[in-house]
Amino acid sequence: MKNIKQISYSSIKNLLIFNNMHPISNLKDNEIFTSLNSLNNANENELTFFNDISQTNILKNTKAKACLIDNKDLKHLPSSTKSIVVKNTYKAFAILSNLFSVKSKSTGNISKYSLIHNSSSLKKNVQIDSFVEIGHNCKIGENVIIKSNCKIGPNVIIGKNSIIYSNCNLQDCIIGSNCVIKSGSVIGGAGFGFDPRSKITISHIGNVLIGDNCNIGSNTTIDRAVFDSTIISKNSFIDNLVQIAHNVYIGDEAIIAAQTGIAGSTTIGNNVMIGGQVGISGHLTIGNNVQIAAKSGVTKNIKDNSIVAGFPAVDIKRWKISSIKLNKL
Amino acid sequence: MKNIKQISYSSIKNLLIFNNMHPISNLKDNEIFTSLNSLNNANENELTFFNDISQTNILKNTKAKACLIDNKDLKHLPSSTKSIVVKNTYKAFAILSNLFSVKSKSTGNISKYSLIHNSSSLKKNVQIDSFVEIGHNCKIGENVIIKSNCKIGPNVIIGKNSIIYSNCNLQDCIIGSNCVIKSGSVIGGAGFGFDPRSKITISHIGNVLIGDNCNIGSNTTIDRAVFDSTIISKNSFIDNLVQIAHNVYIGDEAIIAAQTGIAGSTTIGNNVMIGGQVGISGHLTIGNNVQIAAKSGVTKNIKDNSIVAGFPAVDIKRWKISSIKLNKL
Amino acid sequence: MKNIKQISYSSIKNLLIFNNMHPISNLKDNEIFTSLNSLNNANENELTFFNDISQTNILKNTKAKACLIDNKDLKHLPSSTKSIVVKNTYKAFAILSNLFSVKSKSTGNISKYSLIHNSSSLKKNVQIDSFVEIGHNCKIGENVIIKSNCKIGPNVIIGKNSIIYSNCNLQDCIIGSNCVIKSGSVIGGAGFGFDPRSKITISHIGNVLIGDNCNIGSNTTIDRAVFDSTIISKNSFIDNLVQIAHNVYIGDEAIIAAQTGIAGSTTIGNNVMIGGQVGISGHLTIGNNVQIAAKSGVTKNIKDNSIVAGFPAVDIKRWKISSIKLNKL
Repeated sequence: MKNIKQISYSSIKNLLIFNNMHPISNLKDNEIFTSLNSLNNANENELTFFNDISQTNILKNTKAKACLIDNKDLKHLPSSTKSIVVKNTYKAFAILSNLFSVKSKSTGNISKYSLIHNSSSLKKNVQIDSFVEIGHNCKIGENVIIKSNCKIGPNVIIGKNSIIYSNCNLQDCIIGSNCVIKSGSVIGGAGFGFDPRSKITISHIGNVLIGDNCNIGSNTTIDRAVFDSTIISKNSFIDNLVQIAHNVYIGDEAIIAAQTGIAGSTTIGNNVMIGGQVGISGHLTIGNNVQIAAKSGVTKNIKDNSIVAGFPAVDIKRWKISSIKLNKL
Repeated sequence: MKNIKQISYSSIKNLLIFNNMHPISNLKDNEIFTSLNSLNNANENELTFFNDISQTNILKNTKAKACLIDNKDLKHLPSSTKSIVVKNTYKAFAILSNLFSVKSKSTGNISKYSLIHNSSSLKKNVQIDSFVEIGHNCKIGENVIIKSNCKIGPNVIIGKNSIIYSNCNLQDCIIGSNCVIKSGSVIGGAGFGFDPRSKITISHIGNVLIGDNCNIGSNTTIDRAVFDSTIISKNSFIDNLVQIAHNVYIGDEAIIAAQTGIAGSTTIGNNVMIGGQVGISGHLTIGNNVQIAAKSGVTKNIKDNSIVAGFPAVDIKRWKISSIKLNKL
Repeated sequence: MKNIKQISYSSIKNLLIFNNMHPISNLKDNEIFTSLNSLNNANENELTFFNDISQTNILKNTKAKACLIDNKDLKHLPSSTKSIVVKNTYKAFAILSNLFSVKSKSTGNISKYSLIHNSSSLKKNVQIDSFVEIGHNCKIGENVIIKSNCKIGPNVIIGKNSIIYSNCNLQDCIIGSNCVIKSGSVIGGAGFGFDPRSKITISHIGNVLIGDNCNIGSNTTIDRAVFDSTIISKNSFIDNLVQIAHNVYIGDEAIIAAQTGIAGSTTIGNNVMIGGQVGISGHLTIGNNVQIAAKSGVTKNIKDNSIVAGFPAVDIKRWKISSIKLNKL
C-alpha cells in the first residue's frame, strides 16, 4: 500500500548516481516528493515516469510534480511538471520504486507459535512468523523472513536476506541469498517419476538448488531431482503457477512467465526469456539467450540466440507467416 | 455431503416465486422431498431436474419423485414422476440446490489458535478458525468466515458475509461482500515486475480490488498493481488455477474458466466469458460481451460482442474453417 | 536427500526376485552399495542403471561399482563396473530406489498444536503434525501421515498408509489406501457451477473419491461433484497444477502430466496417458488406453486405443503431417 513519504530530490539524485545513472533535472535538491505514481494518477506532490510512447497524450496532461523522462520526449512534458532526464526511465523507475516503499526487513522475532526442530539452526536476526514448522536439518541464514503457515524442511538451507511468503512448502532444497519465494509455492516435492507399467514410484533422493537473487512466483511448483539437483541459477525470475519438473537445469538470468511448464531433465541456458503458458518437453537442450513466445510448445532442442513461437515451436518469423496463411485457408 | 432434509413442495414453490419463477406442478403443497439429486440417481423421495436433451433416455427411466422440467419435455416424463414445470430448469435447480444444502454460516467463534494484530478490527459475528494470522491494518466485515491456515494482511478489507477458505493468502486487497475465496488462492502478492536487464525489482505499492458477489477459485493467483489497483468487478466468477497479473481490469459479471492467464495491464469489459487455458497478452483491451473459446491465445484488442478462438485468436467461424482445412493439408 | 546406506547385493537380488525379476550378476552376495546414483555421478561404492541409448558414452565412462543393464548393452559396460542384468532396467531401478531411501513412516505422534474435532476418529498409529485442523466427521486410517498446516474436513475418509503433505485442503472426499497427496493440493472444493445469467451458485452436495495407490501432485485442484462423486480410480498418477472439474470420472491407472485441465462431467477410461498442458472439454467420453499428446485440446469423444494430438485434437499421425505442412505454407 502507498506510504506517504518525504523524499527530497537530492535523495533521488544520489540513488540514481549510485546506480550509475546520470540524471539531469530542473528540480532543486530540497524539493520534496511524497510518492511515486502513474502518469494518470500522480498529483502535484508526486513523481512519475514516462516510457511508453502510446501514453504521450497522458503525459501531456499529467499533474505530476516531476517526471523521469528521456531527453527526446521532453517536448511533450507540460510546463507545470519538472523533468528528471535519464537514459533508461524504466530502470530509474524500478530503482526509485524501492526508495518510496517500505522494504520488508526482518524483525528478528521468532513467533511463540512456531516450531523449530532441534537439529536445525538459525543465524542471527531471523524472523519466523506464526504457525511455521521448521523440520529436521535446516539452516536459516541471517535476516531471513519466513511468513506464517510455511513448512520448511527437512534438509533446507536458506541464504541470507531471503523472504519466504506464507503457506510455502520447502523441503530438500538450497535457496540462495536475497531470494523471494512467493506464497503457496512448493519447492522440493518429489518429482513425477514411476515405472509406467508397474506404477512403482521412484524414490527421489535429489534436491532443488535455487541461486542468489531469484524470485519464485505464487503457487509455483519446483520438483526435486531423482538424484543430484533440479537447478534454477542466479538472478532468475519465475512467475506464478509455473511447473518445473525434476532434474531441470535453468541457467542464470532466466525470465519465465506465468503458467509455463518445463518437463523433466530439460537443460536451459543463460539469459532466456520464456512467455506465459509455454510448454517445453523433457530431455531437451535450450541454448543461451533464447526467447520463446507465449503459449509455444517446444518439442526440439533450440540453438543459442533463437526466437521461437508456436506449437511445435519454430522460428518466430516462420510462425508469423504460417499463422497468417492459416487464417486465409 | 448430502444432508437428508424434509422440504415441502410449498417451500420449493415459495422460493421459486420469490425468484420470479412461476412453477406449475401436480404436486400437493405438503408433499416432502429429502434431497435434490441427478436424473440417474434420484430416488422416490428426491427431486431432480432435466435440462439436457441428450439425457432424454435417462429422464424416461428416472425414479425421482418429481422433476423440474420445461413444458415441451413433459411428454418424456414417466408417469411415476411428478412435474414442476418452469421455464429455466437450470436456474430453478441452482436456486433449489441452496434450499437442500446447509449453507455455511459464521459461528461467530474466534479460535484461540488464531492471531489478530491490534491494528486490525473485526465487525460482529466474524468466525476465525485455527492457525489464522490477521496482520496489520485489516478490517473484517460482519459474518465473515475465515477458515484455518489463512494469512490475511497487511492492508486487507473484507466485506460482509464473505467466506475465505483454508490456506489462502490475502494482502493489500479489498474484497467485497458475499464473496467466496476458495482454498489456496493468493490475492495481492507483488506482480512480476522488474527491469529486465538489471533485474531490479519494482516495488508494488498498489492493491487488488474484488467487487461484491465474486467467486475466486482454488489456487488462483491475483497480483497487486504497481500503483493503483488490479480490479475484478462485481459478480465475477473465476475458476481454479487462474493467473491475473498486476494492473489487470476485469469488468462486471465475468466468467473465467480454469488455468486461464491474463497478462499485465490488460482491460476486459463487462459480461465476458473466457474458456479454460486461455492466454491473453498484456496491455490489451477486450470489449464487453466478448466470448473467448478455451485454449485461445489472444494477442490483439477485441471488439465488443466478438466471439473468438484459436491462437492467435480470430473470429470463431474463421477459426473453425481453418482448423478443418489444416487437418486436410 | 541422499542417505548413506549399507545394502548388500543379496538384499538387492532378493528384492528383485520378490518382484518377479530375475537378475543375473557377476557380483558376490556380500558386496555392499552405499547408494543408488546416476550414470554420471555414481562412485565406486554406488549402484547405477542404464536405460537410454543416448547415454551410451556416459555408460562407457561410468565410475559406478555396478550397473542395472540389459543383456544387449553389456558390451558398453567398462570392465571396472560389474553388471546386474535384468530385462526392465527402469522398473528394477524404481524398485531399488525405495531400498536405498528412507521411506516416510508414521511416528504415531499427534502434535499438541493440532486440533481434531470430537466427531472425527483416528485409527492406530496416525501421525498428525502441527497446525493441522481435522474438522467434522472425518475418519483417518491406520498409519496415515498428515503433515503440517493441512485442513482436513468436513466429511473426509483417508485409507491406511496414505500420506498428505503440507498445506493441503481436503473436504468432502474419500481417499484410498497407500495414496500420496502432495503439498498445496485442494481436493473437494465446490465446483465451478452456477446459473450463468443470474449467477446463482449451485450448492455442491457431492464429493470426491480417490482410489487406492493414487498419487496427486502439488497445488493440484480436484473439485467435488454437484451430486454423486468426482472420481479418480485406483493406481492413477496425477502431476502438479492439474485441474479436475466437478463430476469428472477417471478410470484406473491414469497418468496425467502437469498443468492439464479436465472440464466438468467428462468420463475417461482406464489406462490413459495424458501429456502436460492438455485441455479436455466437458461432457466428453474418452476411451480406454487413449494417449493424448502434450498441449492437445480435446473437443470430441475419443475411441479406445487412440493416440491424438493438436488442437482440436486429431489422430497423432494426421497432426504431425499438418504441423509440417503448416510450417511450409
